[in-house]
Amino acid sequence: MTSPPRDHGAPATGAPTGPRPVVVGPEPDDAERARTLAAGVTIGMLSTLAREPEGTPFGSVAPYALDERGRPVLCISELAEHTQNLHRDPRCSLLIAESVAPGGDPLAVGRVTLLGAAAIVPDDEREAAKAVHLAGNPHAAYYIDYTDFSLWRIEVEALRFVGGYGRMSWVDAPAWSAAEPDPVAPLAAGVVEHMNADHAAANLLIAQALGGRADATSATCVGVDRYGIELVAQGGEGTGRVRIGFASPATTSDEVRAEVVALVHQAKSAQS
Amino acid sequence: MTSPPRDHGAPATGAPTGPRPVVVGPEPDDAERARTLAAGVTIGMLSTLAREPEGTPFGSVAPYALDERGRPVLCISELAEHTQNLHRDPRCSLLIAESVAPGGDPLAVGRVTLLGAAAIVPDDEREAAKAVHLAGNPHAAYYIDYTDFSLWRIEVEALRFVGGYGRMSWVDAPAWSAAEPDPVAPLAAGVVEHMNADHAAANLLIAQALGGRADATSATCVGVDRYGIELVAQGGEGTGRVRIGFASPATTSDEVRAEVVALVHQAKSAQS
Repeated sequence: MTSPPRDHGAPATGAPTGPRPVVVGPEPDDAERARTLAAGVTIGMLSTLAREPEGTPFGSVAPYALDERGRPVLCISELAEHTQNLHRDPRCSLLIAESVAPGGDPLAVGRVTLLGAAAIVPDDEREAAKAVHLAGNPHAAYYIDYTDFSLWRIEVEALRFVGGYGRMSWVDAPAWSAAEPDPVAPLAAGVVEHMNADHAAANLLIAQALGGRADATSATCVGVDRYGIELVAQGGEGTGRVRIGFASPATTSDEVRAEVVALVHQAKSAQS
Repeated sequence: MTSPPRDHGAPATGAPTGPRPVVVGPEPDDAERARTLAAGVTIGMLSTLAREPEGTPFGSVAPYALDERGRPVLCISELAEHTQNLHRDPRCSLLIAESVAPGGDPLAVGRVTLLGAAAIVPDDEREAAKAVHLAGNPHAAYYIDYTDFSLWRIEVEALRFVGGYGRMSWVDAPAWSAAEPDPVAPLAAGVVEHMNADHAAANLLIAQALGGRADATSATCVGVDRYGIELVAQGGEGTGRVRIGFASPATTSDEVRAEVVALVHQAKSAQS
């Protein structure tokens, strides 16, 4: 086996180019990005080792929920292949992927693969694990108490995070376990819509004055998280990402608003 | 390891009951169901064997398209973990799952796992394989000619089909290879909508006269395929599936219409 290349090879046809992305201030680390992604998904793909053909990796659908330490809790039936595979060899992984919009690019979405070993949840932890699983999977109420279903938990030993094109890493398992999903994630879509509908001038001002994109003629808000705001600046040198961090992490809608207002004030001061 | 149970164990709480399903006439076999399902999906979940932790099954996102023999054609980068895993051990599987509607039950949808070995497509078959992949994955045009991307093909050795709750089987690999996706599948949603909007009386008549559900007070069309029509009958003994096969397989919209009209005539004759 040869070593993998470190970067994409030359394309036969032209590929898009543009200004380099701008990142000012704090941003989430990959453990936080991965935990946030996983907190917004409830259906995973479980990979186990097939009994026949023996040792071939076997993919299956597995609803899951994460406990507070980031361990996936599954509710699976003895009738299912994956369960029989796990009885024979507990090594497995759970792939968690953001959904792809119709017609969207499947490689542009985030996904994380949690690798480890699965075991049946011990009796004295079953009620807590059941509550974790049901919180994420209300449909499981129909079968969670069938006697052929058991709760299994994966102890995460390694994880691979892919945040779309160009962002990928092996994340430290203890960092995953300790990371908190972003409390701003459930609010983000509303904030983005509001910034674009009512504050286009503020987006542009932030990109120009704080993002080094004085050439920009417009800027669109494309994301917000606990640590900052994500814009795409257009015009002049081209279309490119601009990320500006907040002074302090935000956890509520009010705190996000206060941090964005502070960025606008800072941008006005920088321009005057 | 004990033998798996043959059926779900007793639930601790009540589970839904109803009349037994009615199936009259031909229906697709599982090879056909699986090929039809896979023809409507373009994003699979690839399971490979990780290099670290060695031998742990590793799940990843993999856009695919099937060639005429049902072999998945992938376009994957040397930068990606799954590609490096396949170089080391070609055993893999591709999970293909129908999408779950928001709030829907993830275990009620169909899915198929194709198990086998992957290899780089030989040079003399590359152009044909590229056309297959691009037909299903227009986004791949952006990267398919990068030198670090290669086309890989999985030779399917075994496959597991799950058609929702209670329908699952190991499908014979040659049967998969020979099966044709249902030509009626792309038309089905339109037919179902039309039958429910304009032909509620016909649905009920078919269920009563041909489906042995004389007790039914209404019937909803829930599916159509080349071999027949699927209804859910309500009232009387309860809610249950009624499937009535066509006299001949249909391949076009006109042929579906003619077969349904024939069923209505047959139902009227049976009742008079």
